[in-house]
Amino acid sequence: MTIEKLNARLEYEMENLSRSPNLEKVLEPGFVDKRLYAMYLCETYHYTLHNARNQALVATRRDTSNIQYMKYCLKHALEETGHEMMALHDLKNLGFDVSVDTLPKPLMSTETLVAYLYHISEHFSPVARLGYSYWAERSYEFIQPLLAMLSDGIGVPKKAMTFFNEHSEIDAKHTEEVEESIRRFVKSDEDWSAVEEVMVGSLILTTRMMDEVFDQFCKLKEGKSTRYKFLG
Amino acid sequence: MTIEKLNARLEYEMENLSRSPNLEKVLEPGFVDKRLYAMYLCETYHYTLHNARNQALVATRRDTSNIQYMKYCLKHALEETGHEMMALHDLKNLGFDVSVDTLPKPLMSTETLVAYLYHISEHFSPVARLGYSYWAERSYEFIQPLLAMLSDGIGVPKKAMTFFNEHSEIDAKHTEEVEESIRRFVKSDEDWSAVEEVMVGSLILTTRMMDEVFDQFCKLKEGKSTRYKFLG
Amino acid sequence: MTIEKLNARLEYEMENLSRSPNLEKVLEPGFVDKRLYAMYLCETYHYTLHNARNQALVATRRDTSNIQYMKYCLKHALEETGHEMMALHDLKNLGFDVSVDTLPKPLMSTETLVAYLYHISEHFSPVARLGYSYWAERSYEFIQPLLAMLSDGIGVPKKAMTFFNEHSEIDAKHTEEVEESIRRFVKSDEDWSAVEEVMVGSLILTTRMMDEVFDQFCKLKEGKSTRYKFLG
Amino acid sequence: MTIEKLNARLEYEMENLSRSPNLEKVLEPGFVDKRLYAMYLCETYHYTLHNARNQALVATRRDTSNIQYMKYCLKHALEETGHEMMALHDLKNLGFDVSVDTLPKPLMSTETLVAYLYHISEHFSPVARLGYSYWAERSYEFIQPLLAMLSDGIGVPKKAMTFFNEHSEIDAKHTEEVEESIRRFVKSDEDWSAVEEVMVGSLILTTRMMDEVFDQFCKLKEGKSTRYKFLG
Repeated sequence: MTIEKLNARLEYEMENLSRSPNLEKVLEPGFVDKRLYAMYLCETYHYTLHNARNQALVATRRDTSNIQYMKYCLKHALEETGHEMMALHDLKNLGFDVSVDTLPKPLMSTETLVAYLYHISEHFSPVARLGYSYWAERSYEFIQPLLAMLSDGIGVPKKAMTFFNEHSEIDAKHTEEVEESIRRFVKSDEDWSAVEEVMVGSLILTTRMMDEVFDQFCKLKEGKSTRYKFLG
Repeated sequence: MTIEKLNARLEYEMENLSRSPNLEKVLEPGFVDKRLYAMYLCETYHYTLHNARNQALVATRRDTSNIQYMKYCLKHALEETGHEMMALHDLKNLGFDVSVDTLPKPLMSTETLVAYLYHISEHFSPVARLGYSYWAERSYEFIQPLLAMLSDGIGVPKKAMTFFNEHSEIDAKHTEEVEESIRRFVKSDEDWSAVEEVMVGSLILTTRMMDEVFDQFCKLKEGKSTRYKFLG
Repeated sequence: MTIEKLNARLEYEMENLSRSPNLEKVLEPGFVDKRLYAMYLCETYHYTLHNARNQALVATRRDTSNIQYMKYCLKHALEETGHEMMALHDLKNLGFDVSVDTLPKPLMSTETLVAYLYHISEHFSPVARLGYSYWAERSYEFIQPLLAMLSDGIGVPKKAMTFFNEHSEIDAKHTEEVEESIRRFVKSDEDWSAVEEVMVGSLILTTRMMDEVFDQFCKLKEGKSTRYKFLG
Repeated sequence: MTIEKLNARLEYEMENLSRSPNLEKVLEPGFVDKRLYAMYLCETYHYTLHNARNQALVATRRDTSNIQYMKYCLKHALEETGHEMMALHDLKNLGFDVSVDTLPKPLMSTETLVAYLYHISEHFSPVARLGYSYWAERSYEFIQPLLAMLSDGIGVPKKAMTFFNEHSEIDAKHTEEVEESIRRFVKSDEDWSAVEEVMVGSLILTTRMMDEVFDQFCKLKEGKSTRYKFLG
């Protein structure tokens, strides 16, 4: 396995996901409004809260024996710490009255993503989590059309897009670091296969989360109640 | 919330699942063969291996403070210990040459189910896992048509169905115990909502596992390679 | 290594401990009173609360792969569940007004014993904890003189000695089970050495706990304040 | 509670420890030789290997909710990562042929210290581990006489003292950071009491480790065998 093959697999999976009927709907003019974005920010808050934690968890393992890799994990965890507050900040700037205490609980699919990331961080090969970072850091290039739709299509102000803009900017730097780490620390066939499995697995679970958010939005459009009480 | 409402929710979800197009295909005469059952046993081995462990995990928690409930968890874990060997035994009796060491690794959806069960056992309300037991112990009444198809439709011999037959038999006894435990130990609104969330969540993740097994079977029918090398 | 050598080592360590100057003082007529016993019950409550939990923890490990041993751990955990309440019950029957909520926190040495037992249950060889059970189940034969002193010397009533009397009775049965388990499940040199290390380690830490209780008692006799406020 | 009182308590405990008969022996001209230092480096390797890990563990907790404190933990863990290799390096420069794989296992007292630090990092108040950092970072001022004895008394070369010299240098900087963190993050009475308890507890367990090293050295002087085979 090589990083080129990993990348080819990622592009193949992304290509598949881009044909999702939900995505078409989302990009259809007039279908969505800022409440979908609000719901998404809420779930983003929930999983982001755990990202630095499950990243740090890798560094606590007795079998994370490569000192340079252990440092990478801690540095990366440090950079991710507190990013959930950006999602909350954006939600407030979107005009909703929420706080850490009044936010609805995570959706089942968000909880599943969180569970999976802790699980692989604790029990798979210590390098496996790089498979998540690999696509997560690069995802901002794929979601450009979505971001454009948010700002142009439904008029989300810049001050409510700090989470995405910030992450797009630190993108280039991080992508390079993750690629370098994969080249440096992923050696055996089992390691490569763990990285690939986690890349695909976490991507699918993230897509499921986005699909459940979309379903909730459709329920809301139909006038049904959801757990997002703050949307009124 | 009451156990009657929990049951109504379960029946509603089961009703939904029974309309799955994959299930229709499976029950269609001549479509499936014993390789589908073999794949399913393989995944059953993988998640069952963890069931006693995540059940015991609940008993290790400092905040599992009800002594009677702690005893229930340990007794239940004790009863589940080693059941994965029945699935392996059935796989062998089906005519396949497998062992603990040569079994293919779990599918991504199986791994996700396992991750979720550990997650809720460690981090949700201590009683949350009862939501999984609630439907799992009762599932055998729902899957009777599937079992009939296995034995009559594709001629799986009785000696390769010990896992299901055994679990159907201990069914009645366990169902009662789980119901009694729910009545005894689930008190607050948060507890009830955790039980319901885990019931639905683990049911959906189990269905996803069955769907992925079905997809793998379809790949095999089309002559593509799968990770189930033992199927030849 | 054999169980005979393990036993010889235990007797050697017990012999050493029996020459402790604190023990001499304790057995000296008129030196101690029931407050020492009350302090000891309080610490017994604290570590016993964790015994079933750290025993169950062994069964949750992925590398506890022997099914019979896993069952032993769960059965043993089940038998230990809730025993801390006997210590609390004895404390009340001794005439003190305490409850789970008003009990003073564990001493530093009690906390250390608890930390050690979780640590070895999670990270040493899965069979290592048998080293703790080995001496703990047999300790009641060694502490007979102490128990006699409690009842005859300082007049502790029978109803305040249920923890010790109960454990003395289940002693014979358990001792046999633990010995049988050691013979059955401890195989490699590393396993034997882990069992021996944990036997000696947990014995020493338990002795330290008893020494700290004794120091606290001496402070109390000198009129200094301790954390055992319920002693008045 | 204030940091001044914490400091007063530390000085009181240090004062007590400085009257240890073992310490007197160690400082007695001609009694010790570089084998004692080698044994100590070996145990230092073992507990230091876990320091960054148990520090990072604090940051993985869901209830470590203060983002600034979480960052402090990760930064501190990052700075500690790999320091065990300095101890190993010093051991080699002392003239002994050892490697990560051939090093003897930790002493029982070293294992206990490690167990305690993981325990409090996972289960005490999230700020409790600051109590360990507080004295550990400042310990180098207390052990100056010991270091002088090492270099002047038994002629340990500078190149075999990198662990201590390095830590003495980063001392001033870290001490300030830890004090600032205590002032910033330790608020409630329970937090202060957890910090104090961990300060005293970890100091005592470290002293016990040094005492066990000393006992092992005495055994060696008497010609008895120890687990430090590399000493010849």
